[in-house]
Amino acid sequence: MTKRLGTQTVAFNSPPSIIACASVVGNKEGQGPLGQYFDIVTSDAEYGQKSWEKSESKILNTACNLAIEKSGHKNSDINFSFSGDLLNQCSSSHFAHRDMPIPFVGLYGACSTFALAMSMAAMTIDGDFSTLSTAAASSHFCSAEKQFRFPLEYGSRRTPSSQWTVTGAGCAVLGQHNLPPFVTHITTGKIIDMGIKDANNMGGAMAGSAADTIIAHLNDTGRDSSYYDVILTGDLGIIGRDVCRELLHQDKIDTSNYDDCGCMIFYNTRQDTPSGASGCGCCASTFCSKIFTDLKNSTLNKVLLVATGALLSPLTTMQGESIPCIAHAVAIEN
Amino acid sequence: MTKRLGTQTVAFNSPPSIIACASVVGNKEGQGPLGQYFDIVTSDAEYGQKSWEKSESKILNTACNLAIEKSGHKNSDINFSFSGDLLNQCSSSHFAHRDMPIPFVGLYGACSTFALAMSMAAMTIDGDFSTLSTAAASSHFCSAEKQFRFPLEYGSRRTPSSQWTVTGAGCAVLGQHNLPPFVTHITTGKIIDMGIKDANNMGGAMAGSAADTIIAHLNDTGRDSSYYDVILTGDLGIIGRDVCRELLHQDKIDTSNYDDCGCMIFYNTRQDTPSGASGCGCCASTFCSKIFTDLKNSTLNKVLLVATGALLSPLTTMQGESIPCIAHAVAIEN
Repeated sequence: MTKRLGTQTVAFNSPPSIIACASVVGNKEGQGPLGQYFDIVTSDAEYGQKSWEKSESKILNTACNLAIEKSGHKNSDINFSFSGDLLNQCSSSHFAHRDMPIPFVGLYGACSTFALAMSMAAMTIDGDFSTLSTAAASSHFCSAEKQFRFPLEYGSRRTPSSQWTVTGAGCAVLGQHNLPPFVTHITTGKIIDMGIKDANNMGGAMAGSAADTIIAHLNDTGRDSSYYDVILTGDLGIIGRDVCRELLHQDKIDTSNYDDCGCMIFYNTRQDTPSGASGCGCCASTFCSKIFTDLKNSTLNKVLLVATGALLSPLTTMQGESIPCIAHAVAIEN
Repeated sequence: MTKRLGTQTVAFNSPPSIIACASVVGNKEGQGPLGQYFDIVTSDAEYGQKSWEKSESKILNTACNLAIEKSGHKNSDINFSFSGDLLNQCSSSHFAHRDMPIPFVGLYGACSTFALAMSMAAMTIDGDFSTLSTAAASSHFCSAEKQFRFPLEYGSRRTPSSQWTVTGAGCAVLGQHNLPPFVTHITTGKIIDMGIKDANNMGGAMAGSAADTIIAHLNDTGRDSSYYDVILTGDLGIIGRDVCRELLHQDKIDTSNYDDCGCMIFYNTRQDTPSGASGCGCCASTFCSKIFTDLKNSTLNKVLLVATGALLSPLTTMQGESIPCIAHAVAIEN
């Protein structure tokens, strides 16, 4: 019996439970509005490591181990780990999982990775392929700036539309379990290219894919946007959130319950992040801290998490290409 | 009812059918021993594009469109596309899928990607999450050399242990269908690091993960290696194949039916590929040409495909790290 709804959505027969979550973030993120919700705030960008890449890897490894510990299980109980990051060849995830004896699936969805990992993990549980699966993602401001923009030592000016890459990681443990919250639906995005070529305006570039996936989800499920307590995009930031809202309005979709993780994690004016935040770790650490807490204590009961990814590379930008984008949605309900 | 066998394996209740496959390769691959089996052999490395990256993307896009066409379906019939490649931020896959309106899942498993994509696609079919899913992967000699080693224009000498990255792509269409061959089992690999640091000996580095996954598969299923007509690793090449064989012998596993895609695609002496081939496209194009043909005409009836990936990046090598590796196995049977 097919579990498909409409063109892009899967409705689970036995919705997987999110058993536990853990988040580890950097110092700047810890000083933001969500500071109290994170499990661990590192005291500096290095986290005791010799390179930013190793630091990112350790942040992710710590988040995964902590989430599994909080779920009451051991690493060897996990049947699948789904993880990804922004670094070339996803090295943060691979080195983070090197000492974890868990069947591993590497994902690349840029900043959409956490929702993609949740989607895949949920399918392994509902399909009886796994008893316990983890979904994780990470990013690091310093490793991302070095790889995608300029060495930090240059002290380059940032454009007003550029978003601040979150230093952080989140990991969720999904399983066959009777306790809410549950992953009830996933809507997997198509690649959308609006023709935008400005790699310093990724929020604007990704807004179209976010709106496309939200609209597909609502059409596929027959739900109105007001069904959800909150519809939360991954990291469009201030500019991207406004563009996404405008696109949803054009489709007569009410956006009074719409917000964006990239607008929530920093005090944007005081912390000098005028267009908000981005990075795989943004949505992952926001969900695995405040949003999961709000779901557990029923402050929120119905959440649509829509993580968005800009699928460019520095090379494709240099070759004059526009930015293909994607957004994946996960419905989480008590 | 769980579909898990042992620690790493899933046994499907309703084994997904591989409905169609397509392969597109470069000129050098076309002149190799498998030349007659490929659907399309390009006349040059550019394939009408202005960069090697765009060429790789077009090769992958062509393989995907052709496989879907051969399956008797349209792009819009596909519920999930699983795809990955070696380029930074997996740009070959993203640009290849930009004009394909298919829910897209980006994977990174280095040269293990094709088997990983088959594994994920098979779970979406058996789990009733999808009616039709595609699994694809690509690589390109020129884009890989440029990114991982040296610009081709330097004319650098290659080490005797280095493998030649295949220019090519393969795509398989999986679905709920009654015609063999079927994907009956998947064994998802753990990350194995043997401590090898020589990025020019990736076959040797990956051999341990290949042996680990083969042993896990045989233990989990209770099968003897002789159950299979052929056990085929992804792209260990000559050196890696010999190391893997040695490791399997230490576990008293008979290897008379064992071979490696990286040893099959070129006339290694005549075509100056002394250690054989590598790249995501190696296993993908070999499976989607000769192996699939042999399964369809029952020359082969039981195949264990074990694609292997070296999860290093140029940066982790420069930082003195060893090479984490992974191997994913897919059992395909008539």
